[in-house]
Amino acid sequence: MEPNKTRHIALIGLGTIGMSMAAVHLQDPHSILDFFDVRPDLQQQVLAQLPSFLKAVAPDLSIETLISSGRINFHPTLESAVASATIIQEQGPENAAFKKSLWAQVEKFAPNDAHFWSSTSGIPASVQSADMGDNSRLLVVHPFNPPHIMPLLEIVPSPNTKSEEIDFVMNYFHTVSPRHRPVLIKKEVSGFVGNRIAFAVLREASYLVDQGVISVQDLDKLMMASLGPRWAINGVFESYNAGGGDGAFGGFLDKLEGTISDVWSGLGTLDIKESDAAWRDKLVAEVESTYSRPTPAQSSAKAAKLQELLRLQDTR
Amino acid sequence: MEPNKTRHIALIGLGTIGMSMAAVHLQDPHSILDFFDVRPDLQQQVLAQLPSFLKAVAPDLSIETLISSGRINFHPTLESAVASATIIQEQGPENAAFKKSLWAQVEKFAPNDAHFWSSTSGIPASVQSADMGDNSRLLVVHPFNPPHIMPLLEIVPSPNTKSEEIDFVMNYFHTVSPRHRPVLIKKEVSGFVGNRIAFAVLREASYLVDQGVISVQDLDKLMMASLGPRWAINGVFESYNAGGGDGAFGGFLDKLEGTISDVWSGLGTLDIKESDAAWRDKLVAEVESTYSRPTPAQSSAKAAKLQELLRLQDTR
Repeated sequence: MEPNKTRHIALIGLGTIGMSMAAVHLQDPHSILDFFDVRPDLQQQVLAQLPSFLKAVAPDLSIETLISSGRINFHPTLESAVASATIIQEQGPENAAFKKSLWAQVEKFAPNDAHFWSSTSGIPASVQSADMGDNSRLLVVHPFNPPHIMPLLEIVPSPNTKSEEIDFVMNYFHTVSPRHRPVLIKKEVSGFVGNRIAFAVLREASYLVDQGVISVQDLDKLMMASLGPRWAINGVFESYNAGGGDGAFGGFLDKLEGTISDVWSGLGTLDIKESDAAWRDKLVAEVESTYSRPTPAQSSAKAAKLQELLRLQDTR
Repeated sequence: MEPNKTRHIALIGLGTIGMSMAAVHLQDPHSILDFFDVRPDLQQQVLAQLPSFLKAVAPDLSIETLISSGRINFHPTLESAVASATIIQEQGPENAAFKKSLWAQVEKFAPNDAHFWSSTSGIPASVQSADMGDNSRLLVVHPFNPPHIMPLLEIVPSPNTKSEEIDFVMNYFHTVSPRHRPVLIKKEVSGFVGNRIAFAVLREASYLVDQGVISVQDLDKLMMASLGPRWAINGVFESYNAGGGDGAFGGFLDKLEGTISDVWSGLGTLDIKESDAAWRDKLVAEVESTYSRPTPAQSSAKAAKLQELLRLQDTR
């Protein structure tokens, strides 16, 4: 990827994730952003919300200058937004029919060599590309909240995505946003990898609270006092490899085999869709009595702390 | 608990966890430590290893002064080690028969009001206390590695443990070691809570690597770039409560119900004891080709980074 080339990035859907990704792309001084969203007050929303995202990642940029200099453009139609695009990235509704129809249209209007990215957390590229003539250009770029700060981007190609598309997106983020860590997910599994791990934790945590083993507050305190910090500094396998001493990871498994086996066979199972899921009502009541809705000031303070923590890591 | 009272802490078993806990207790200037371990070279080991633990949590203390001033005492018998103890904490072999026999002896030699703590990661107090005359004084204080730095202490009483014992241990760590976070585990479940969550993650992570969805290296990179930092700053339930917007935690469950349901029903199950566990050989090979054994310098650098991260948190 050429580092000093002007690139048009068309962003389709400018909700929170769209705004956040706009700030990420604007870190590249050669980027030109083309916005399309069906909401009539798009420009007011961008003026109101984008500055706080820019402040966190590109504090020298002014929203007024970005608009007046033509680095941010508002488009009345999808056709004009994507007409000159190098990259088209969508973060529209999480609805397969919407996304299928969107990409079929984008394909008609966009340059033949444009790159197609979806920010979905759950609808794989193989589903989204079903109505396209050429399904080899689309892949998923799934960010984690908050996307402009959290380093992870799950790159999830479909079985039809060309390997050049994977190389391009990996290079793009390495070049444009050194804080981001694109990670390749090689198969389209439900929840990709990050949410599978997070929801496995959510299930066991909910089960233990439901069983009266620990309170919601103490479960959270426990994570912040142990596994969160551990996994911020060392990976899961890296930790256990070190924990195995001379026997490395195999030694760890040998030593803990009995406990691991007991734990695995006793992990809780919960059904979220069961109509009378009593655990769900119980958890919702306890979580909502433990935490109030965070104020904007609390959210900003947490985001600032997260940024400080990420500066410590140097994980690349 | 009286803050300025002289307390004798008898530590039984001075391996890595024992040395680490010794450094924790020595933060209290009024503590007197009584060591007992069957190894013949105990004093040399303490002289060689304790200073590095002290350096991290109580850098002003000198091992020579601690010994010459009588704050650290080496005992030839269990009987003399526990005779004056306020607290007796064991970190001996993870073997139920050993621990049962140990506590039955300790009970004979220790003062009637001494507090009995086990650092076990897996043998509950109700099992360990089976041969005691009074099983109401023993509880588990399970630290996380490295114990002198990692804040979590899982406090796991048996159904017979007196509530005064729980209050005492909570107060003790709040007073003596502000860096530590004792968390109450209300039932004796396998793996307690921290390792249940960690092993749920290990199972899904191993499953995804075995299925070819992600590499060992990328799984670790993903955790360090997303869930580790998230859970270092926000708890599991706190994060999803904030993520639910106006609907709070209930709103989050409603919005993600479909994906959570798909993920929960598809989480991997692995058998660690199956004699021909092919996944286990595959994982051990990939982990051990990804990571070499950490050098002491690498381990120290990671521990220093972990301490920096914990200073950022202010989770109490």
